[in-house]
Amino acid sequence: MRFDAAGLADDARVHCVAGSIADAQVRTEALAQPVDLLFHLAGITSRQAEADFELGHSVNLEAGIHLFEGLRRQARGARVVYSSSIAVFGAPMPDHIDDDTRLMPALSYGAQKQIGEILLADYSRRNWLDARSLRLPGIVARPLVRGGALSAFNSDLIRALVTGQRYTCPVSAQATLWLMSLQRCVDNLLHAAVVPGDAFAAERRAFTLPALHTSVARLVDALAHEFGAGVRELIRYEPDAQLEAQFGRLPPLATPCADRLGFRHDGDLSQLIRAVLVDL
Amino acid sequence: MRFDAAGLADDARVHCVAGSIADAQVRTEALAQPVDLLFHLAGITSRQAEADFELGHSVNLEAGIHLFEGLRRQARGARVVYSSSIAVFGAPMPDHIDDDTRLMPALSYGAQKQIGEILLADYSRRNWLDARSLRLPGIVARPLVRGGALSAFNSDLIRALVTGQRYTCPVSAQATLWLMSLQRCVDNLLHAAVVPGDAFAAERRAFTLPALHTSVARLVDALAHEFGAGVRELIRYEPDAQLEAQFGRLPPLATPCADRLGFRHDGDLSQLIRAVLVDL
Repeated sequence: MRFDAAGLADDARVHCVAGSIADAQVRTEALAQPVDLLFHLAGITSRQAEADFELGHSVNLEAGIHLFEGLRRQARGARVVYSSSIAVFGAPMPDHIDDDTRLMPALSYGAQKQIGEILLADYSRRNWLDARSLRLPGIVARPLVRGGALSAFNSDLIRALVTGQRYTCPVSAQATLWLMSLQRCVDNLLHAAVVPGDAFAAERRAFTLPALHTSVARLVDALAHEFGAGVRELIRYEPDAQLEAQFGRLPPLATPCADRLGFRHDGDLSQLIRAVLVDL
Repeated sequence: MRFDAAGLADDARVHCVAGSIADAQVRTEALAQPVDLLFHLAGITSRQAEADFELGHSVNLEAGIHLFEGLRRQARGARVVYSSSIAVFGAPMPDHIDDDTRLMPALSYGAQKQIGEILLADYSRRNWLDARSLRLPGIVARPLVRGGALSAFNSDLIRALVTGQRYTCPVSAQATLWLMSLQRCVDNLLHAAVVPGDAFAAERRAFTLPALHTSVARLVDALAHEFGAGVRELIRYEPDAQLEAQFGRLPPLATPCADRLGFRHDGDLSQLIRAVLVDL
């Protein structure tokens, strides 16, 4: 998604530099003043990074390297909140995921995110910056974007059923997901900016956020509970095996590191749905 | 160590391109003809990559990225044998290491090697090349190089005691090491070049080599057994806590992936010492 800076540019406190992070001039301008706190949310997501390797490589990998190098050259280390992704875990998924799970991405997007985590951990160890990398689960509801993230079906499903549209689901009813509302995601990113850096050191500064672990069937049940049994009629299933293996086989998740540091999921499906409605 | 190409240049079958892998022109010349099989052994090792970050970053990370990109652009995928390192495991070490252990490097060298593994796994998944990344343990005996790898004390100790020199050991007698003879290392690298690529897929193409797990005390016992009790008088201990944490706390190791694929360690300390003597 292209970031819409239209509203921000009117705010006198904001200096807006719009452009691609892969453009050296944009990076130079963005880092012209020393940075105290940086939220690195830019990225070419799963589908597009898989379809257009060179674009993903350029934005997710090379631009990241240059950005971190720019921060390294600052006199004082910036605090960096980095949006990593659960795509660092690749299909076939293990039976259970926790903070000790070996990362084995099976998409270029996940590989590139993992490399970002490693570099930020090393730069933090050397005290050049103070990073914390949060692996985001499926965020709902994302804006409707054609050809967006492969996991966007999470959002599309909720959006369709809530607004009474028919929806063809690309994973089965038994598919299991990790979900978080956009609202809760923003709260967690802001929380990440205030936790002291030392707290992340033992985990090498990268960890998985808590998320609601649900099957599609249970999500549809929860939507039927809120919006009436009619929503069940709106959905039909045409599972794509490869998509389901990567994004529909999320196993039970334990996130002791994030839990200890005060990161939270939405509580339950009913709360998740209410949080999603705010943004629809 | 600088590779000595003097002998090779005389061999009519060999086209030798000598220079730094970080030099674009050297890479272009080396890849001018399509490559079938590439042993990527070039690197700035632990001590130097830690002391001179920009050099390590340039050679271990950026030159690697460019090299793999060069291979991606070939019409046919090259087989790549990549020397990774046990530095992908960082201090403090876990109680036990096996193929499922989460990698948490604590040196820039280890971080850079891990990134190489990830890129090669992703490029292999996309069938652009056919890589296998071998994590090498402490290789003995390395050539004597001032300011070489941090783990070079493994070699220096053996070399000193075998040749009757006094040696001040920078880790304690209780320190534990993973060792492999240079001879055995070469055998394993050559073996890696003939194992079919499919065999590595499940491990994502990166794995730890088997190694002899020994304490320094047991190594000294084995040397005393071969060369007489007098060698015990040659060694004294001045442990460096940080060095010992990274290179002297190697835990018990299980390498089912490498074992299954036919990679081997030296058998026992007596065989290791005999293999080392050949190269001294």
